[in-house]
Amino acid sequence: MKSYTEYLYFNTKQKREYIRITDEVAKLVEKSGVKEGLVLVSAMHITASVYVNDWENGLIQDIDEWLEKLAPVNPDYRHHQTGEDNGDAHLKRMILGHQVTLPITKGNLDLGPWEQVFYAEFDGQRKKRVLIKIIGD
Amino acid sequence: MKSYTEYLYFNTKQKREYIRITDEVAKLVEKSGVKEGLVLVSAMHITASVYVNDWENGLIQDIDEWLEKLAPVNPDYRHHQTGEDNGDAHLKRMILGHQVTLPITKGNLDLGPWEQVFYAEFDGQRKKRVLIKIIGD
Amino acid sequence: MKSYTEYLYFNTKQKREYIRITDEVAKLVEKSGVKEGLVLVSAMHITASVYVNDWENGLIQDIDEWLEKLAPVNPDYRHHQTGEDNGDAHLKRMILGHQVTLPITKGNLDLGPWEQVFYAEFDGQRKKRVLIKIIGD
Repeated sequence: MKSYTEYLYFNTKQKREYIRITDEVAKLVEKSGVKEGLVLVSAMHITASVYVNDWENGLIQDIDEWLEKLAPVNPDYRHHQTGEDNGDAHLKRMILGHQVTLPITKGNLDLGPWEQVFYAEFDGQRKKRVLIKIIGD
Repeated sequence: MKSYTEYLYFNTKQKREYIRITDEVAKLVEKSGVKEGLVLVSAMHITASVYVNDWENGLIQDIDEWLEKLAPVNPDYRHHQTGEDNGDAHLKRMILGHQVTLPITKGNLDLGPWEQVFYAEFDGQRKKRVLIKIIGD
Repeated sequence: MKSYTEYLYFNTKQKREYIRITDEVAKLVEKSGVKEGLVLVSAMHITASVYVNDWENGLIQDIDEWLEKLAPVNPDYRHHQTGEDNGDAHLKRMILGHQVTLPITKGNLDLGPWEQVFYAEFDGQRKKRVLIKIIGD
């Protein structure tokens, strides 16, 4: 079994951002030499998500507004009694999920035609990390 | 390490449908010959989910009504400015998730007594695909 | 490829509980001898979650109140026509998700500084099980 590990770093300008990372992941799959296997793409911070959905700006705005409705910015989270102000980010990240596992088939990411991998930042403007772990043969 | 890849195809009669696929996945695990490993079951379209929950019709209706409350059909999604009309399907699929990873132990799917795998279609009436990727020994 | 499988058991005092299991998972990774690979941590019951987020009591209460808002206890679920009373638990578990896949790098769980693994029980006071499946080299 082969394995290959890499980290992607992000430091977003906005508090909330949605960044397509499909190409970065695909390049690492190629670099790993794995022909059949799995890639884990996982946010290492607890106020960020990794998800798969459409690469379409209208939808990305829809997702952002929808998350804000389901898990709004709000001063009253109990978590804020610790001095933090990012309670909403901890909740938003649960809706989209914090990781995806992508299949590798014949040496390539085996994605459907519209599947795109995104890093979603909910508490940005500081350095964050995503782990890429590839295993297979 | 062994690997085995297969695709399941769906073309639902309804716009939204919930289809149990546990048996199909179990058969592919048997076919793969893998005794210890993992199966990734992942929707390849971005308006569908794969999830694990109860095989009980009342609950399936509860899930459907609940998703409609959290991510309703609505003409006003920005995504619809592209000519699409499935904004709600892109959001519903985020709640249930688009993939599961199932354990294989001693040659069988290692599921709890009520765990059932479902394909959830939110924008059907056309051909859709689910990837099954099995890796292990 | 090495593999190692273990089950964790829970029987919570409360109906709903959030239990940190990072240390238990880390010990099993050590015991497995796997240096590079993946750990699947998956609830085997359909009214429980496994998720990664902050180990902070205020946030845990925020999560609990938030789940109760999004998927409330309610006598009217159709699922209850079967005699069950845990419809909300089946829905709450979908929001947090029922499994995570954790990376193993150089023999250790490769988690960010605040990443903690939790078992979330939504229908407790009876025996429940979580599967830990480790694969790698």
